[in-house]
Amino acid sequence: MESDQDILISEKDVTGVLRLTLNDNRRRNALSEEMLRELDVAFSSAAVDSSVRVIILAAKGSVFSSGHNLKEMTSAREHDDRGRAYFAKILALCAKVMQGIVACPKPVIAEVSGVATAAGCQLVASCDLAIASQTAQFSTPGVHIGLFCSTPMVALSRNVSNKHAMEMLLTGDMISAARAAEIGLINRITSEQELSEAVLALAHKIASKSSLTLATGKRAFYEQCEMSLSKAYEYASNVMVENMLAFDAEEGIGAFVEKRTPQWRDE
Amino acid sequence: MESDQDILISEKDVTGVLRLTLNDNRRRNALSEEMLRELDVAFSSAAVDSSVRVIILAAKGSVFSSGHNLKEMTSAREHDDRGRAYFAKILALCAKVMQGIVACPKPVIAEVSGVATAAGCQLVASCDLAIASQTAQFSTPGVHIGLFCSTPMVALSRNVSNKHAMEMLLTGDMISAARAAEIGLINRITSEQELSEAVLALAHKIASKSSLTLATGKRAFYEQCEMSLSKAYEYASNVMVENMLAFDAEEGIGAFVEKRTPQWRDE
Amino acid sequence: MESDQDILISEKDVTGVLRLTLNDNRRRNALSEEMLRELDVAFSSAAVDSSVRVIILAAKGSVFSSGHNLKEMTSAREHDDRGRAYFAKILALCAKVMQGIVACPKPVIAEVSGVATAAGCQLVASCDLAIASQTAQFSTPGVHIGLFCSTPMVALSRNVSNKHAMEMLLTGDMISAARAAEIGLINRITSEQELSEAVLALAHKIASKSSLTLATGKRAFYEQCEMSLSKAYEYASNVMVENMLAFDAEEGIGAFVEKRTPQWRDE
Repeated sequence: MESDQDILISEKDVTGVLRLTLNDNRRRNALSEEMLRELDVAFSSAAVDSSVRVIILAAKGSVFSSGHNLKEMTSAREHDDRGRAYFAKILALCAKVMQGIVACPKPVIAEVSGVATAAGCQLVASCDLAIASQTAQFSTPGVHIGLFCSTPMVALSRNVSNKHAMEMLLTGDMISAARAAEIGLINRITSEQELSEAVLALAHKIASKSSLTLATGKRAFYEQCEMSLSKAYEYASNVMVENMLAFDAEEGIGAFVEKRTPQWRDE
Repeated sequence: MESDQDILISEKDVTGVLRLTLNDNRRRNALSEEMLRELDVAFSSAAVDSSVRVIILAAKGSVFSSGHNLKEMTSAREHDDRGRAYFAKILALCAKVMQGIVACPKPVIAEVSGVATAAGCQLVASCDLAIASQTAQFSTPGVHIGLFCSTPMVALSRNVSNKHAMEMLLTGDMISAARAAEIGLINRITSEQELSEAVLALAHKIASKSSLTLATGKRAFYEQCEMSLSKAYEYASNVMVENMLAFDAEEGIGAFVEKRTPQWRDE
Repeated sequence: MESDQDILISEKDVTGVLRLTLNDNRRRNALSEEMLRELDVAFSSAAVDSSVRVIILAAKGSVFSSGHNLKEMTSAREHDDRGRAYFAKILALCAKVMQGIVACPKPVIAEVSGVATAAGCQLVASCDLAIASQTAQFSTPGVHIGLFCSTPMVALSRNVSNKHAMEMLLTGDMISAARAAEIGLINRITSEQELSEAVLALAHKIASKSSLTLATGKRAFYEQCEMSLSKAYEYASNVMVENMLAFDAEEGIGAFVEKRTPQWRDE
């Protein structure tokens, strides 16, 4: 366990559940350059760490994440290029983190207690699964400050339908956790007290599966999403054949037939 | 304000909200050639009119719009080509209007009181946002008359999930406003009495934002929808950098930091 | 009507409703090689049989379908190639059946009473419409046995939103019929007693339409789904022009104007 001073706390339990906690309450868990770098390293490391089976992304305090650090961003306006290069750098880093979550072979679950706005909302949308406390709230409020949430919309619009996404984007209004569940931005809500327990139970359930199988499936999911139906079937059928030939499928099917618990080798 | 005799009434208030009202009750607000031309001109003009910030599309009478004017269409069957050229012309014009709503830099809100069928339903689906009275109804009934709602389905299927779209298309059944809200065809329902007020409040809220920001975001939304995740992030990140460098983002962020109301230049 | 010994019962009523019933209760209506072949033949034949207007896909027993026949699959592990060629053959056949449902010019309605898992759930997702008894359940449980439901996900992810699909895929948990309706996997639920009647009523409603119109529309639906908005409009407008010039549209519109029942020629 790391120090409470870190802006991103990383804790791993014996079952392979890695809990990453945004811990920069003073800056409302903003996705500052520092935070983005920490997230990038954390997800990149977890991706290749065989002891990590599932990742929980949580936050301390009443704000899950407020999105980009506007103070840091605006300070770059004093540069000769009025900040262009710095903005591009931060946005590229942010896009890397968000796509790193999608590309990470381990399932990532957002645990949202509090307010997730702008790129903070994008972070939730980018996770594979999300559970929120009933008091959590979500918005893409860039339109209030003249800066449309154009990058958050990439993740948002791949989770909710057009009119729901457009309502959030054009009004900047906060929506409740219940509404977020209704429109598909999150999987479900719990009481504030039960949130961590519910997320952990979900993480443990998934951590009990073969890591190879989860990695195979997660990757295939996002790959086939972008294909035509016939290409998707061709691709997924190949994935399935390779999966069948892996040790864990042979073991898993064998255990099922013999009514015993499978012993994964994760390969 | 224009005369009540116009089949498309155009009214603009001081806040930049343009209200377009279908006013051809005698023909059930059909998308006749004349109506399509009026809509095309209205949206094209509004697109480049800097005094227009948000557009409301409403209708007079118990029918929001009944879709294509079948009488007009069938009269072309007497042509030498059995109407082929005329049908193609009308459908091209209709597709231009529908895509003109999507391409219009100003957000478009449908205000639906009454029945929206076939291309009338497509009109609602093509708007960025839609609020309907609880007595409104929606259908794509072409299947009843041997003419599948193939062009309405383009807009419908980009708003609701496959099985919901197919149910409407294959049965032609009318669905309630509540069901339309459930499946994502519209954003929400209100009572008949509160409808116009609710739509106007939504329009005013959006009209208070920077027009540049809204135009940037709306365009980016529909563009990135059709891209792969990585292309979408590359594209949206560029949009975001340009947006950051625009006056309105600098002003908006400054006003936010200084806790004052931003003064948009819409540029 | 065929014998009760067939693993796929095929019954056609006078209105053109073909009812295909999975009848291999002993093997939990698994999609064995034999069952896949029967389904392939049944859908291919129905596709070109002008006496078939609508297809219902139902099942006998408490299991709608348990997906692939694991016993049959694993027996191929004894082959020299450890089953690779056989797995590829079965998955290609399965993908052919699923895409055959989508490509079939006749609307296909799933009638789900019981448990639909893995490729059984994919079968439901692949149908144009689905009604389930309130006791039906759905899951993609491959993750339990080390074999991710990668081919079922192709159909699943084209029906429900990302987080909902991922929850089913990563946990393997069973979801209720009510939840399946909420997330868009099925159209609606009925009581167990009313299921067959509700499905038949829906089938009869659709069977009363022009087969040409249904075939035109169904094909156009899945084609345009994979196109950009502008390509989709170009394509659908052409489909609409051809549809207008067909006999059934002229007849249907004429009957509508004259307030009589149309007499389809299905051409």
